[in-house]
Amino acid sequence: MRGAVIHAPGDVRFENLDDPQIIRPTDAVIRTVATCVCGSDLWPYRGLEPIGDPHPMGHEYVGVVEEVGSEVTSVKPGQFVVGSFATSDNTCANCRNGWQSNCLHREFMSTCQADYVRIPNAHGTLVATDDHPADEFVPSLLAVSDVMGTGWYAALAAEVKPGSTAVVVGDGAVGLCGVIAARELGAERIIAMSRHEPRQRLALEFGATDIISERGEEGIARVKDLTEGIGADSVLECVGTPEAMRQALHSARPGGNVGFVGVPHDVAIDGEELFFSHVGLRGGPAPVRRYLPDLIDRVLTGRINPGKVFDLALPLEQVAEGYKAMDERRAIKALLTP
Amino acid sequence: MRGAVIHAPGDVRFENLDDPQIIRPTDAVIRTVATCVCGSDLWPYRGLEPIGDPHPMGHEYVGVVEEVGSEVTSVKPGQFVVGSFATSDNTCANCRNGWQSNCLHREFMSTCQADYVRIPNAHGTLVATDDHPADEFVPSLLAVSDVMGTGWYAALAAEVKPGSTAVVVGDGAVGLCGVIAARELGAERIIAMSRHEPRQRLALEFGATDIISERGEEGIARVKDLTEGIGADSVLECVGTPEAMRQALHSARPGGNVGFVGVPHDVAIDGEELFFSHVGLRGGPAPVRRYLPDLIDRVLTGRINPGKVFDLALPLEQVAEGYKAMDERRAIKALLTP
Repeated sequence: MRGAVIHAPGDVRFENLDDPQIIRPTDAVIRTVATCVCGSDLWPYRGLEPIGDPHPMGHEYVGVVEEVGSEVTSVKPGQFVVGSFATSDNTCANCRNGWQSNCLHREFMSTCQADYVRIPNAHGTLVATDDHPADEFVPSLLAVSDVMGTGWYAALAAEVKPGSTAVVVGDGAVGLCGVIAARELGAERIIAMSRHEPRQRLALEFGATDIISERGEEGIARVKDLTEGIGADSVLECVGTPEAMRQALHSARPGGNVGFVGVPHDVAIDGEELFFSHVGLRGGPAPVRRYLPDLIDRVLTGRINPGKVFDLALPLEQVAEGYKAMDERRAIKALLTP
Repeated sequence: MRGAVIHAPGDVRFENLDDPQIIRPTDAVIRTVATCVCGSDLWPYRGLEPIGDPHPMGHEYVGVVEEVGSEVTSVKPGQFVVGSFATSDNTCANCRNGWQSNCLHREFMSTCQADYVRIPNAHGTLVATDDHPADEFVPSLLAVSDVMGTGWYAALAAEVKPGSTAVVVGDGAVGLCGVIAARELGAERIIAMSRHEPRQRLALEFGATDIISERGEEGIARVKDLTEGIGADSVLECVGTPEAMRQALHSARPGGNVGFVGVPHDVAIDGEELFFSHVGLRGGPAPVRRYLPDLIDRVLTGRINPGKVFDLALPLEQVAEGYKAMDERRAIKALLTP
């Protein structure tokens, strides 16, 4: 089969690779129906994270089950499945608590930009749809496997409630999905922080009520202007930089909550400042598995359409162009189909 | 009148001071019935916080209203009142949200180890009891004004729920009150981290089910032993040092919560570590005013007896001995009566 391999910053190649095999009885192998490039894939692509030896890339996927190990009974060959970027047995203590992305047997997916993918912990990771979904739903189901699940978690971690005010920091695919989540969870006012016109448009389409293009102190002041001077009930931090975390913490009202889902890079939080802010903080890799049945249902009933974050669709073999377009901000997110 | 004045580390004196006056129409003046020395008073006493010019001390109080300003209608002279270390108008946006300790007109109390005390924002700060309570209730009502209110908040911030497991880091008065709070909120297992035998005994009396005397990695390992290997649902951090915060964060399970109420001193939280832990974090000065009616009721109906944290009772004029006894760990907490 063929798949994406990163060799160096800016150097992603589409190469021949060994077909994945069932290694453990809890594995499955799927034929990829769609995969994509994630904002977090850009960290190594931009040389901001070490690459080491050349290795495959990709952690988002929907596909059709080809083969399952002997212990996998929840899905079977031929079924269309959605998974999560973090695999989970769905039975350990953390999974039972709803934190499948902290499963004691978790493996992070990392080989999904390919024709076929081995899924560890397939039994507790994959969720099959009733039928093979119509093509129009595929992008949104793919989004559910990561960015929509992550935006959902950000909104829950930020404790978005009906009638509340939410701020979304970051206008990447996760931030935009966070707008959808805030709307679905009943936020009355949704303030999207974005400086990019196409992303502003999509944020408004997804349910944002206000756009703030300023950043830093000015951005914080604008949020305060819209929130009785005290800040928002909920803030979704969807970037992972120190600036974004600062923006988020200072945009939340006393007693408000920040859900942070951008993988933090060089972020340190001052204990005393957090203390006196009274802001609650929770982050982490989203426990997407917990939300899959609900989010799949919302997609297939047409309630949400997070697939719109894909503003570029390419054949999988042009994966390198997907990285390039996202790196150059020509695309929000690139969909890849074998 | 007379009151405590700190001059330098280790140097607290009982001196003649001007009688407090009504300055603003929202003030009240109370005659102190009981006050005490707080663990946080020991920071400047130990030279760990700058003192500057000599100044009065104390932020915990119960008393009888002597005089009220023209805008104070919620309490009247002669009533026994309980307040909070943070004053609040109880009407601003933060107060309406339940965060009275972040009131837009907040003033922190700082002159309470004295015969009389001026209470700013008296209307929104003081809560009167129906009658003058019996002497036996005075220590617990005094505790409610700070340490019990703070332990309560720690348990709520740590999201203690019926049937859950809670760890309390810190065996000072706040930590011990945190044990009471965890029990009242229905925690099934309450693990108190304490190395001091008299405090261990009180923790057990207050509802702790387990005592861990180890600290650091060993303490964390002991918590894990008691919690299916994953950590506790809720952790109350009642100290404020980097070691205690680390202990707390590592004692919580993925998806668990840390409530931190020890004022942080040189505490920095690593964003990436917090992210991958999935632990929720909320701290701050407790919004005691929110809990006063409930906690006063729990005291007067005999449900809770947090006054037991006072293991030393002195006449107010011996306030210096109160500081000394606590500094030398001869006392958990010193009660002072004029």
